[in-house]
Parts: sequence; C-alpha cells; structure tokens
Amino acid sequence: MKIAVFDDYRVGLVEGDLIFDVTAAIPNASGAWPPVFMTQAIASWDKLLPHVQQARRSACPIALASVNLLPPNPCPVHVVAAPANYRKHIAEMGTLAVTKKGRSVREQGFFMKSTASLTGPARGIELPRGSGRRFDHESELAVVIGKVTRNVTREQALASVFGYSCLIDVTMRIEKDVAEEERVMRKSFDTFTPMGPWIVTADEVGDPQQLTNQLFVNGECRQDANTSDMIVGVAELIELVSSVMTLYPGDVIASGTPEGIGPIQAGDKVSIRIARVGEMTVEVRETETVPPFRFEIKAAQSTSQQR
Amino acid sequence: MKIAVFDDYRVGLVEGDLIFDVTAAIPNASGAWPPVFMTQAIASWDKLLPHVQQARRSACPIALASVNLLPPNPCPVHVVAAPANYRKHIAEMGTLAVTKKGRSVREQGFFMKSTASLTGPARGIELPRGSGRRFDHESELAVVIGKVTRNVTREQALASVFGYSCLIDVTMRIEKDVAEEERVMRKSFDTFTPMGPWIVTADEVGDPQQLTNQLFVNGECRQDANTSDMIVGVAELIELVSSVMTLYPGDVIASGTPEGIGPIQAGDKVSIRIARVGEMTVEVRETETVPPFRFEIKAAQSTSQQR
Repeated sequence: MKIAVFDDYRVGLVEGDLIFDVTAAIPNASGAWPPVFMTQAIASWDKLLPHVQQARRSACPIALASVNLLPPNPCPVHVVAAPANYRKHIAEMGTLAVTKKGRSVREQGFFMKSTASLTGPARGIELPRGSGRRFDHESELAVVIGKVTRNVTREQALASVFGYSCLIDVTMRIEKDVAEEERVMRKSFDTFTPMGPWIVTADEVGDPQQLTNQLFVNGECRQDANTSDMIVGVAELIELVSSVMTLYPGDVIASGTPEGIGPIQAGDKVSIRIARVGEMTVEVRETETVPPFRFEIKAAQSTSQQR
Repeated sequence: MKIAVFDDYRVGLVEGDLIFDVTAAIPNASGAWPPVFMTQAIASWDKLLPHVQQARRSACPIALASVNLLPPNPCPVHVVAAPANYRKHIAEMGTLAVTKKGRSVREQGFFMKSTASLTGPARGIELPRGSGRRFDHESELAVVIGKVTRNVTREQALASVFGYSCLIDVTMRIEKDVAEEERVMRKSFDTFTPMGPWIVTADEVGDPQQLTNQLFVNGECRQDANTSDMIVGVAELIELVSSVMTLYPGDVIASGTPEGIGPIQAGDKVSIRIARVGEMTVEVRETETVPPFRFEIKAAQSTSQQR
C-alpha cells in the first residue's frame, strides 16, 4: 500500500498513476494544527485499515499528476538521521567530513533534523537567497516507524517498521577551519528534507538491504548505490536509536547517503528513486524572503566583532 | 501566570503552593496521543485565556506537592539547544569540548534534542544502568516560543516568546579520541531533558538577561551564574534559529549552560533554580531495563569487530 498526503493535508492511496482520497477514514486529517494526523494514523493503523479500505472502494480516482504532494508524514515526533553509513561516501568526504576517520554511524550514533525541514514535491527545496555556501544533495532511504520502540534487538527491529519512503538530506557543507557549524543546523533549514512521494508499507518492500538508491540532477545520475552497501543496516540502526531513546509511531529515520553527493542550485530538478519504494522529483528554488544570510564565510568571521 | 502539566496530562495554574486544575479549558488535554495539547494551547492562548480564567475561578485548590509534575510542554514540534553560550563554560570544557576553540553558538549554530528526552519531576532522570560513562548536569533557561516565527530580527524576537522554564540538559560526555559520539545522541537519551516545574509567561519575567541561573546537587551549589553572561542572548538566539528554520508555538529553546557542569549519579537529587521562573528538583535513577549499554569505551571499540 502506498500512502500519500496531498493538497490541504488530505490522505490518499496511490495505485499506478492514480490517487484515491481516503481522508474520511483518517481522524484529524486536513484539520487541526500541528498536522499529527499521520503520526496518529500510523499509531492505530491496524484499527483504521478496514475504514481506509472502505473509503478506497467508494473513492473516485484522481490523476496523481494533478495533486500537490506533501511529505507523507508532515509532523513526526522525531526525524532521526544516520551520518556516515556507506563506506564509499565516507571515503569521498575528505576535508568536508566532520566525522573522524574510520568512524561510522555505529561509533558516532545518530543526529536529528528539524520537522520544519520536511517538504514534498509541491514545495520543493528552497536555498537561502544570495548565499555563497555549498548545498548538497544526499539520497537516502527513509524508514517510518510503526510502533513505540525502545531497546529492541536488531533481530526484532524490522517488526517496528511501518514502511519506507525516499528522502533527500539537503546539507550546507562546512568550510573546514573557517566555518564548521553544527551538523543539525546545516541540515535543518526549512525544506532541507524532501520526503516522499509516499510511504510504502513494509510488506511491499521486503528486505530493506536489497534496494537500489539513485539520485539524479537534471536527469543526470549522481548517486547510484544499493542499500546492501550500508555499514549499519536498518535493523541495527533501529536497535542503536532505540537503545538511547523511545521511537514513536510515525518517526522517520534517514538511513544515510551513499557516495556521489554534490552541490545543487536554484533551477535544478532533483530526482530520487529507490527500488520498490518510489521516485520523486523536487525543484530547487531560492527563498523569497531576503534576510541577510548569516552563514557566509566572511560574514561568519566578522559577526562576532561587529555586533 | 504559571502553567503546569501534571498527573495524566492535566493542565493547572500554579499560585504559591497550590495548583488550580484548568484542564476543562484546554482542548485535547488529558487525551489523544501524541500529547500536543500544550503546543496547540500556546498557539491559540489569547483565545483560550478567558476560558482558562473562568476555569481557574471555579477550580478547587490542590496542594502542589501532591501532584506529579510533567514537562510543561510534553510534545513540542522542536526542542532546539544552544551549545557554548557562556564564556566561562567554554573555558572549563578543555578536552571535553567538541566545539573548536573560541567558537560560540554564534559561529556554531544550534542543535536539537529528542522529544523523548523531555521529563519532569514526576519521572526524573534515568541514567543507563551499568554504564561507566560520565553523565553531566547543565543548568539552562528554557525559552518557550509563542507564535510562528521565521526571519525575525533580534529587535522583534522577544515578541515571539510565550514564556520561560527551567531546563537541565543532561549530557553523556565524550572521551576525546576514544568515544566522540554525536552531540545530539549524547543528549537525547530518554529523560535527559528535565523541564519545569512550569512555564512562566513572559510578562512575569521581563528581561531574560537578568536572571540568576543556579543548579544544586544534593543541596550543594554547583552552577551559579546570571543570564547576563550569555554570549548570545535570548533575542539573538531566536533571530539565529529563525534565520534557518520556522519556530512553532510551543517550541523549546535551551539557551545554553554556564560554568560548573559536573557528573551526576543514581541517588542524586538535582535542583535547578532560575530567578522569576521557578525551582525544580529531580531525582536521578538508573534505567530499569538492562540492555547492554552500547557506548562503553571498551565495548564501543570492539563492537565493530564483534558483530
């Protein structure tokens, strides 16, 4: 089952090029702020499923291309992310790396991204207007948690997975020894976490470690790997995170990027394609608002003296 | 006005040693998961206020000491935190620092903590059972955001503040060159963010840069500073965060710790006291569950070979 969120926080099931509106079966959808209806729906999915199926039967098909796709969970409790989880990516980072040599997510542990950074194809990616910094694409398999999960072993961990999605972890790069901001901040700008185009339930994906993970910029393939190359697989990642904190239904884990990361700029069209999960294209723009961008290399140096 | 959350997610107004239950005036309180009722209530506080005041008038007083205090916003959209925001604290960190020399939050930017790490006096702090790692207290003024905030200047920023609270940023320390995990993870263990005992609305606090910020372990004063010593004040902190991402009503910003951080252990009673905000005592325990603790120095070294 492919579950998408669209237009004014409506919920739909995707079949081929069509989407079937099942909003009526999802409590609080298209309603109250904050938009936690998918977090709630995933928490009680088994109970909701008969209602969702009934809504599907009576729904008129809508052309998928005619709706505005939003992130398939617009407001998870946590957006967790794995750094340094593909060996070749660690190798390519060189002086851009903030990770010490040889340390993967297994030794480093996880970080988080802001909920405000979630976006979908409808909005796309907005880079800070007028910035001279480098912003990169990172192509990642997103894991969506299905139940309250604490201290699970890797052997039990996949039972906690509700489904999967495609996720682009947009990142402002450091400039070693000049501007080395917190990883969380560099990845938490509004719209820096495109996710979608939908959540595919885990039963349709099977083994999460046998999926091609590809990313294209303006049609050119930039990242082309397989989740079998992950250092810490999805099951161990859930074990690791849940050994520290409680994961809740609807929580998103970005499982790390393979090699091939590179800069994006306004006007680019970035496509992510993960086998058995889906494909999503997002456009890159600059922000409309024009505050002075705080993180210019030169500005960052002089700020503390100036004010 | 002092707004507390207690028992089974009830909402109360605190006056002296008494609490008045106003749950009836707060939509979704003591109800649906996730517990976003305070996030929602803060977003529409002006509209709710007459109902809250009416509920206060008809409420019977309850002894504050007889209720179980929970974090005063149990489920914010974001828990943002400032590293390195008091000069003397930066100085004391020495080899424990993950921040490059001379870089404050102004150059580094912010990070985040998990929502799962929020706790109150009722639950206290739970350290991982059997760990040999060092866990520290950090005493911080918490800022609670009152409205959707993006790209505000520091001159406008305090108008975005709903209120303030006390916050202890519990932290697993790095062991330089041996175990240097992500800051987010080291601070995101369940119960590593005690917050409370209530939110004091901004009108009762006035200037947030003139508050003593003290922390005691078993009655002994360990941290004793003033928010006037912050490098980046509350207003500039909001400017900084909102230049990157949207802050939402109910969001929490931990504004950084002064000097005097130090280890805590099971059995300790940790008290935080911030002038015009409040005082809160939390007990330190070990977790009941006993998974192997992943982040032992030796275990961390051998894990990647073992499995």
